[in-house]
Amino acid sequence: MEIPGKEALEAAQYKIAPYIHRTPVMHCKTLDKLSEARLFFKCENMQKIGAFKARGATNALLSLPGDGLKKGVATHSSGNHAQAVAWAASLKGIPAYIVMPRTAPDIKKKAVRGYGAKIITCEPTQTAREATLKQVVEDTGAQFIHPYDDYRIIAGQATAAMELIEDHPDLDVIFTPVGGGGLLSGTILAAKYFGRNLKVYAGEPRGADDAHRSLQAGKILPSINPDTIADGLLTSLGERTFEIIKQGVEAIVTVSDGEIIHAMRLIWERMKIIVEPSGAVPLAAVLQNTHLLKGKKVGIILSGGNVDLNTFFEGLGEKTN
Amino acid sequence: MEIPGKEALEAAQYKIAPYIHRTPVMHCKTLDKLSEARLFFKCENMQKIGAFKARGATNALLSLPGDGLKKGVATHSSGNHAQAVAWAASLKGIPAYIVMPRTAPDIKKKAVRGYGAKIITCEPTQTAREATLKQVVEDTGAQFIHPYDDYRIIAGQATAAMELIEDHPDLDVIFTPVGGGGLLSGTILAAKYFGRNLKVYAGEPRGADDAHRSLQAGKILPSINPDTIADGLLTSLGERTFEIIKQGVEAIVTVSDGEIIHAMRLIWERMKIIVEPSGAVPLAAVLQNTHLLKGKKVGIILSGGNVDLNTFFEGLGEKTN
Repeated sequence: MEIPGKEALEAAQYKIAPYIHRTPVMHCKTLDKLSEARLFFKCENMQKIGAFKARGATNALLSLPGDGLKKGVATHSSGNHAQAVAWAASLKGIPAYIVMPRTAPDIKKKAVRGYGAKIITCEPTQTAREATLKQVVEDTGAQFIHPYDDYRIIAGQATAAMELIEDHPDLDVIFTPVGGGGLLSGTILAAKYFGRNLKVYAGEPRGADDAHRSLQAGKILPSINPDTIADGLLTSLGERTFEIIKQGVEAIVTVSDGEIIHAMRLIWERMKIIVEPSGAVPLAAVLQNTHLLKGKKVGIILSGGNVDLNTFFEGLGEKTN
Repeated sequence: MEIPGKEALEAAQYKIAPYIHRTPVMHCKTLDKLSEARLFFKCENMQKIGAFKARGATNALLSLPGDGLKKGVATHSSGNHAQAVAWAASLKGIPAYIVMPRTAPDIKKKAVRGYGAKIITCEPTQTAREATLKQVVEDTGAQFIHPYDDYRIIAGQATAAMELIEDHPDLDVIFTPVGGGGLLSGTILAAKYFGRNLKVYAGEPRGADDAHRSLQAGKILPSINPDTIADGLLTSLGERTFEIIKQGVEAIVTVSDGEIIHAMRLIWERMKIIVEPSGAVPLAAVLQNTHLLKGKKVGIILSGGNVDLNTFFEGLGEKTN
């Protein structure tokens, strides 16, 4: 297969539209002032399953031949892709097998189970994930849906930026987070095919900065024991995503966990919407680079909103006793 | 003065439009399913200062004669009205004196100070508030802006429902929370003048159920030591709000703090937006009465989103060390 062309992205958008939300684009005067730019937040935290991953998973599943679906689908994921595949499989009524690191947040495990998928737990390393997944595929005959290194996934994730560009054709730049690179590479393709001289940047947690290092080295240098609060961005680039990213990204900005939490808090308190740490990474990157963005129209993809709120609400409940 | 007529509401809407947000109306398929109704959430949590109170305060301030403003404005409030008056005064560049109970959440005190207002602390009782306010007005000559028992405030708060009705003219019912009754009485007037056979209900915390009891008794029975997690609804009805409410409200539904927290959590987790406990009260009332609302188009005013997130974000920050 080749890097998806304009038509592949348009086909993905058409195919998944009946299943996903066209998410709103929000503004915030306080954050515009703070950044001295005009920010357009694409609210993928309000997408089905609470993250953009619903787009890629739906496109991948709908692209499989009918026969190939009977034995179900399988994947490994630290969270949102797991939910996305489980959810998309439930739409089709087929089994889903999800390999998840034992450290994944409870809220994400619970949601996956809620869609009727089977969870297989593994150690939180790339090697353990891949070995466990291989075994599951052998045992069940399920089709593997890679979380990012798959052109059907990349084309699906591209649709978030396509919608944002449709709503705001004169954007100057778009910021996304980068983990495995599915959203970033999809956004790069969308910007290339549908933007007007639209540049794409990514924010990456400093504790999982493989994309930044890989780009500098010109080859994939995976993260070893990545450590960041942005639990959706622990994975490392794949061959297909790296190829697109190295050609098309303007820069990858690394941000500290402190900067991520600061950005996340601004979004919660000022915009009154919930993003998970990974979803706040692009704003953290923007706030670190306001000198470059002055007066520009900046798209920001708020990638997801799945935060474990147990402790918060248990605390509230106790107050009432 | 008389109960505001249609023209007074239209004048308020026109007057405050340049200063406030026209807030979005959101939907949520999961909550539609859960309630078996169609819910239209008016997001006043995304209003200026994070609550609908910006509407009434702006209208009240803009209705004062120019000379009357020089010595500033004063009020007492458990929170959002305080911020609203402080903010509106800062727009006009006049002093604001805010009497606040010492138990008010830090986030609200901080915000009031942020707008340059002076805070005068008092005990958390209606009597202490009123006595302290009286003293402040005597000392400063400031104009008192009542948090709810004022027709200019009521007309201002009515504009939230006016916008909701403009966006969805075929609503069957609207639910608001009720504390002092400013939002509820404004909504009743808006429904009467602009709705099509539109009925208005209110949700009220069981621990501060003066509106419910007053309606049954046919006279104002204030709450003594009200106790609820919905800290924006501790106040009791005033003469003006009671008069409108007793004529126009369909019913006042009391809800427990447990129901409020449950509704709040649904909004956070399913809609990915932040409401404060008071703002979740109408949804709690809806969920208690789904048998009456089956298939109906139900407007819900999410009155505010000012929650103290210190503990939550401090907890997150600690994880990163």
